[in-house]
Amino acid sequence: MKKPFANARKLEEIACEFGTPFHLYDESGIRRNARALRKAFAWNSGFKEYFAVKATPNPSILEILKEEGCGVDCSSYTELMLAERSDFYGADIMFSSNATPEEDFRLAAKLDATINLDDITHIDVLKQAIGYIPETISCRYNPGGIMELSNGVMDNPGDAKYGFTYAQLAEGFRRLKSLGVKTFGLHSFLVSNALTELYYPQLAEVLFKTAVRLSEDTGCRVKFINLSGGIGIPYRPEQKAVDIDNVGEGVRQMYENILIPAGMGDAAVFTELGRYMLAPYGCLVATALREKHIYKEYIGLDACAADLMRPAMYGAYHHITVNGKENDPAIKKYDITGSLCENNDKFAIDRMLPEITPGDLIIIHDTGAHGYAMGYNYNGKLKSKELLLREDGSVELIRRAETPDDYFATLNF
Amino acid sequence: MKKPFANARKLEEIACEFGTPFHLYDESGIRRNARALRKAFAWNSGFKEYFAVKATPNPSILEILKEEGCGVDCSSYTELMLAERSDFYGADIMFSSNATPEEDFRLAAKLDATINLDDITHIDVLKQAIGYIPETISCRYNPGGIMELSNGVMDNPGDAKYGFTYAQLAEGFRRLKSLGVKTFGLHSFLVSNALTELYYPQLAEVLFKTAVRLSEDTGCRVKFINLSGGIGIPYRPEQKAVDIDNVGEGVRQMYENILIPAGMGDAAVFTELGRYMLAPYGCLVATALREKHIYKEYIGLDACAADLMRPAMYGAYHHITVNGKENDPAIKKYDITGSLCENNDKFAIDRMLPEITPGDLIIIHDTGAHGYAMGYNYNGKLKSKELLLREDGSVELIRRAETPDDYFATLNF
Repeated sequence: MKKPFANARKLEEIACEFGTPFHLYDESGIRRNARALRKAFAWNSGFKEYFAVKATPNPSILEILKEEGCGVDCSSYTELMLAERSDFYGADIMFSSNATPEEDFRLAAKLDATINLDDITHIDVLKQAIGYIPETISCRYNPGGIMELSNGVMDNPGDAKYGFTYAQLAEGFRRLKSLGVKTFGLHSFLVSNALTELYYPQLAEVLFKTAVRLSEDTGCRVKFINLSGGIGIPYRPEQKAVDIDNVGEGVRQMYENILIPAGMGDAAVFTELGRYMLAPYGCLVATALREKHIYKEYIGLDACAADLMRPAMYGAYHHITVNGKENDPAIKKYDITGSLCENNDKFAIDRMLPEITPGDLIIIHDTGAHGYAMGYNYNGKLKSKELLLREDGSVELIRRAETPDDYFATLNF
Repeated sequence: MKKPFANARKLEEIACEFGTPFHLYDESGIRRNARALRKAFAWNSGFKEYFAVKATPNPSILEILKEEGCGVDCSSYTELMLAERSDFYGADIMFSSNATPEEDFRLAAKLDATINLDDITHIDVLKQAIGYIPETISCRYNPGGIMELSNGVMDNPGDAKYGFTYAQLAEGFRRLKSLGVKTFGLHSFLVSNALTELYYPQLAEVLFKTAVRLSEDTGCRVKFINLSGGIGIPYRPEQKAVDIDNVGEGVRQMYENILIPAGMGDAAVFTELGRYMLAPYGCLVATALREKHIYKEYIGLDACAADLMRPAMYGAYHHITVNGKENDPAIKKYDITGSLCENNDKFAIDRMLPEITPGDLIIIHDTGAHGYAMGYNYNGKLKSKELLLREDGSVELIRRAETPDDYFATLNF
């Protein structure tokens, strides 16, 4: 059974003080999880998690993760700005982007971020943009083809728009070396939201072997290997969270079997987790505004896809509980909807829940990543505020709600 | 063959002056189409099109449509504000919303908009929100069940979150009458983007018969019947546009067969078209920024799903032409991508196009509706500007591009 990270009375108090809807984040959960990740990879002295800013681009969240030793993974100009304003600098910033504009490369270089090139043609683009090639460069690898993941899930990296082929990596490394690169990194991203503990070890095997092969083929030594994101979280109550210790141990075995025998035991392992770092430590709290009894039973919330788009875009499951009714029997079948004039604006379809009365607080779980970040303003809807539940129980407004002035800001009446 | 509404030299000039990416709208096409719609329904003296603001919420677009005799269909507080600022008032505003907040009802009432209730429970909500029930009220009908549309497409209104059942309509009309309502309207929305000319006539048949039945059952006379939106546009080059004269004529026949014999020949017919009014008269113009040759061929643009989400969210087809290469043979198979770190950010997959060189202008067609309006800021991407190609050939900036300051506006560093 999934429970919210704050109890019913606390959530009621917060809703009273700040008004719904809001995303609420849990500082203590974020810290506990970040520490567990660091511990699981403590066997690698160079280990670093670069939080995927795109998941939760809020400076208060970044500050917590910085205190826990994380860097940031940025994918755009504004994410780099956010990193700069949050005092990340140099090797604490990874910049991974595709179809990258020159100005983004310039800002990344100004911040001395580690640039992870998406494509072999970007070597020239980068050189033209900043006038030189930094001494540290990472390249993104796309192994292509179809890959069977350990849990039977098939992935199709050959259809993904990211990365270099192996031949391009070899050619690119040689060119980069001739352009003065001294420290090489290797990066790959294969799947999103993997719930098998074997995903990272399997990806590590591919990347470690590729790093060894590149070293043999090009003489370029890979000093860091970036497993990027992909570790999933159990959105559904019947799913099991990954044991991060097992994941770290699986990667360690690959490291010992592949990199150490190749004399590459000085390579650092990096991760760029977003969902895993934040999703379970955020929830969207809304009020049941309207009920509707037609051919089905509906509860309409004061939140909508503007606040959380994953159900509308991906058909994603988010667990829902009714505040204070966690232990009531789930006897009613509801569609829980937002207020958009767009029929995919449903947080849940045919979901069994306790009986809901207008005014009830509805908790939509696991919105800490790719929640607020993916909001839009369709139907002129305004995005909600973000609140942070501090370890001491206090609550901080870490982003105000949008106002009509924000919505009209780009118009000139 | 689909051609852009501006020729290659003109688009090149506009791109030079304003920079890409941008949405460009075509005033003359918008006016021509609005006039054709009005002509097709000229047989009904009360006919009015209420443009669905959600499709293209820009005051310069609303101004053009106002001059062509259109009203506005608003779905939210900010859309009502936009209507007010664009000088729409009273019966020129239709307000259709679901899970409606009280403040939205209050603004609608202040503007004397026609309120289209989504649910029978909203009668009490409205009365509580504004203290009275307006003399003119519309109700939204959901016929339920499964409906076979004339083209063999099945629709499932029983699964849609909108509207009253028939029994609720009858009960609601009686209650509304006792609360002082003098003028009743009836509204229904069944499908989106219908390309059959029979859709509106078929919906009209349902609504007209329902209006007659309601009149018999409740004594309440329906004075306007709102066919809402749903007429589609040919996104694909092989699709045929609907002949709006045939649509109007089909609705007229139903009107003559059903309403006139029932003595209801004074009923006005309303529409709430969005896509049909604007989609073909807008395009997204972007620059081919990067090329990529791995397991497939990619062209990365300076636009992304932040500017046009329909392909990512719905897998929607948008036709693409390469500016100045309209007559070149389509010899290369490309994925045309945006720059998001999200693999669904592809404007086209496996699309045959002329060979593209970085720097080429890429025209993504039919983005005039649900294009800019559905943009988001995922990955910290900023939404593009909107330009209007005036009838005299001049070009006006009708919305500036977002800046980092806009993106950070709700944060307090």
